[in-house]
Amino acid sequence: MDLRDGVGNTALLTDQYELTMLAAALADGSAHRHCTFELFARRLPHGRRYGVVAGTARLLDALEQFRFGEPELAIVAGFSDATTIEWLRDYRFTGDIDGYAEGDLYFPGSPILSVRGSFAECVVLETLALSILNHDSAIASAAARMVSAAAGRRMIEMGSRRTHELAAPSSSRAAYLAGFDATSNLEAVRTFGVPGAGTSAHAFTLLHSAADGAHEAAAFRSQVEALGVGTTLLVDTFDITAGVATAIEVAGPRLGGVRIDSGDLGVLARQVRDQLDGLGATETRIVVSGDLDEYAIAALRAEPVDVYGVGTSLVTGSGAPTAGMVYKLVEVEGVPVAKRSSHKESRGGTKKAVRLARGTGTIVEEIVYPAASDPPAANGFEVRELLVPLVRGGKVVDGQPTLADSRKLVSRGLVSLPWEGLKLSDGDPAIPTTFVP
Amino acid sequence: MDLRDGVGNTALLTDQYELTMLAAALADGSAHRHCTFELFARRLPHGRRYGVVAGTARLLDALEQFRFGEPELAIVAGFSDATTIEWLRDYRFTGDIDGYAEGDLYFPGSPILSVRGSFAECVVLETLALSILNHDSAIASAAARMVSAAAGRRMIEMGSRRTHELAAPSSSRAAYLAGFDATSNLEAVRTFGVPGAGTSAHAFTLLHSAADGAHEAAAFRSQVEALGVGTTLLVDTFDITAGVATAIEVAGPRLGGVRIDSGDLGVLARQVRDQLDGLGATETRIVVSGDLDEYAIAALRAEPVDVYGVGTSLVTGSGAPTAGMVYKLVEVEGVPVAKRSSHKESRGGTKKAVRLARGTGTIVEEIVYPAASDPPAANGFEVRELLVPLVRGGKVVDGQPTLADSRKLVSRGLVSLPWEGLKLSDGDPAIPTTFVP
Repeated sequence: MDLRDGVGNTALLTDQYELTMLAAALADGSAHRHCTFELFARRLPHGRRYGVVAGTARLLDALEQFRFGEPELAIVAGFSDATTIEWLRDYRFTGDIDGYAEGDLYFPGSPILSVRGSFAECVVLETLALSILNHDSAIASAAARMVSAAAGRRMIEMGSRRTHELAAPSSSRAAYLAGFDATSNLEAVRTFGVPGAGTSAHAFTLLHSAADGAHEAAAFRSQVEALGVGTTLLVDTFDITAGVATAIEVAGPRLGGVRIDSGDLGVLARQVRDQLDGLGATETRIVVSGDLDEYAIAALRAEPVDVYGVGTSLVTGSGAPTAGMVYKLVEVEGVPVAKRSSHKESRGGTKKAVRLARGTGTIVEEIVYPAASDPPAANGFEVRELLVPLVRGGKVVDGQPTLADSRKLVSRGLVSLPWEGLKLSDGDPAIPTTFVP
Repeated sequence: MDLRDGVGNTALLTDQYELTMLAAALADGSAHRHCTFELFARRLPHGRRYGVVAGTARLLDALEQFRFGEPELAIVAGFSDATTIEWLRDYRFTGDIDGYAEGDLYFPGSPILSVRGSFAECVVLETLALSILNHDSAIASAAARMVSAAAGRRMIEMGSRRTHELAAPSSSRAAYLAGFDATSNLEAVRTFGVPGAGTSAHAFTLLHSAADGAHEAAAFRSQVEALGVGTTLLVDTFDITAGVATAIEVAGPRLGGVRIDSGDLGVLARQVRDQLDGLGATETRIVVSGDLDEYAIAALRAEPVDVYGVGTSLVTGSGAPTAGMVYKLVEVEGVPVAKRSSHKESRGGTKKAVRLARGTGTIVEEIVYPAASDPPAANGFEVRELLVPLVRGGKVVDGQPTLADSRKLVSRGLVSLPWEGLKLSDGDPAIPTTFVP
């Protein structure tokens, strides 16, 4: 499977209520009213200072495969009427979508997507849009904090085993977008072109055991013969000091790296560095892995660590496995609409947004304003429009950013944050957002 | 896409290091050593008292599609040698797998899967097996706590929007397995036969707005006309008391249900029940949704709630989005092997497990023992072997449980727990596990 080309039909990645609403709206004629739906996060996950928009390109691909063929219509027929089935048979989105560029930062209330068209054609995209953006943005937002904590050291994503098998390649992509360097996941290599990485697990060392005990040297020798002296040997299966000594004995001082996957990584990294240097292996890199999150990565900043391998905490969003974005109807036939229930208010009306920055590039404020109004006054700041055209008349607009472009955008976004915005501790959003009524 | 039949090739849902280990093991001949890998959880998520095994049937399906065709081999060729490519070209698993039946409970150290065959054929399944079981078991384990907290009331899974789009149907399946009654996700209806549910969102009410204001009655009338009087009307878009009055005015006292999605659900449910009863709508059901987890569900037990809709907390495992299971080599050519590093010890050797229960059915202990030994003495307890044959000689064994069978097994498992095991508060595993050396 190529997840990008081969995901197949996406039409049933949908909540049933979207199609029951569609049925009722087709019956009463309201289905054709011109609407705006906006996708946004009411708040950031607890204590987070910024979010990273991710998933947009995947959504645009999935949108093109959102078609109801006979197998999909057979499921809809289980609860819907002939008119609805006929309407869905011809479905293709014909409206317009604007959105924050994939890789841009977002804050509470940022109108990340603005989806415009008939009620019918927009309402059915709710679940697909939210599933993709909530997942990918959650991973990218956590990953960006880890990248920033790693301060330029190499980062490998290796969390596939701790997330759904088909979410794993998307997680790898989101991590790469946020600045990770490589992934263990081969489907992500194929589907998204993320660079692959990986050498060996404890199983390989243990495999070289016999009734007379373990033969770590045999395992290392085999690995070096097969993968070359540039490989990374896993040295903590039995005793780390002995493992490092054996590794250099077998591979020589030009060994590419050693990996430590357990224990007090800071203490061990320093000890292993000293040992490697003493053996003349001054260029051999130290790779650490094992329950790392952004705090553990930051805590190792003073230690001689060259590469971080991050798994569970990355693919689970480091405590925030969903970005919590919602998809809300904000305008019907030019009239702003909004729910009035407690704690879940939305702001009615189609919106645009700008971000203001000082001449140095440091951002200071986001302003969300009615799309029909003029942009807010610059007051001497640089002003950047945040919503860019993604879809026009149902067609994806040419020139969408590549994954590499989005990766650069994340990197620029992190540089643009005021310094408090990069703190890992709990805090408020890095910049305030003003909502112009 | 039918996720079961159409997921396509699963061979690259694999971490690169499995294939680099394979290459080295093929080169030195160790690839053909007979091995046992076991899949288990070192511990339950913090404070949890039991886990629910889920994903087994999905893994058996994915295993049959684990084949390296030319497109997959092209990716492997990027980092591997011709011998490895040739070996993968012919790959099919030819070994044996035993496992806990899908839907059974598990505890720390339970040998949930025992995978036996050559090192080469077993090592490449690590990521696929872990991704599926870690995801599905995390969701099913959280769902079972919610089902138990709901004490028999109807439960609808509606979390698709808060998880990866292709993880969503698997989440629905895991929730249904654990005792949920229905899902909002249409792909889960198609792929796994989970019953579907869903009526309308706030957008439908807001759609029936005009320059002169909102027309909630028009929205309700339209919905009842399209979906029948048995439908559920969402009454909290503006004012709940007015919404309930309008709902009964439009639909009459035989309205199927009203849904409340915001506010203090306990207070509101009671108030709405009184109002409905006063209007003669004594059979109209109250559906609540909005940030529910097992604690909120339990807290509503004394209130007149008929149906719970659960989203985010379910699909994110209610704080434990992965089950944290690992896949470890435990035996090579009949010799037990184990890593010795701190905090991550494994127990070497192929294992079996039994669970002991009183005559009443209440379980008291799990015993994990060497597969080559006799089962432990019963000591007057009922003894159940936990590992059942899943695959023999690479073929899935006939008579695997259906989803309905596994659902019954979860239900029976919950009944078998000592009463402390059902407490939602943090605690120890519900029964102790004894490891026979």
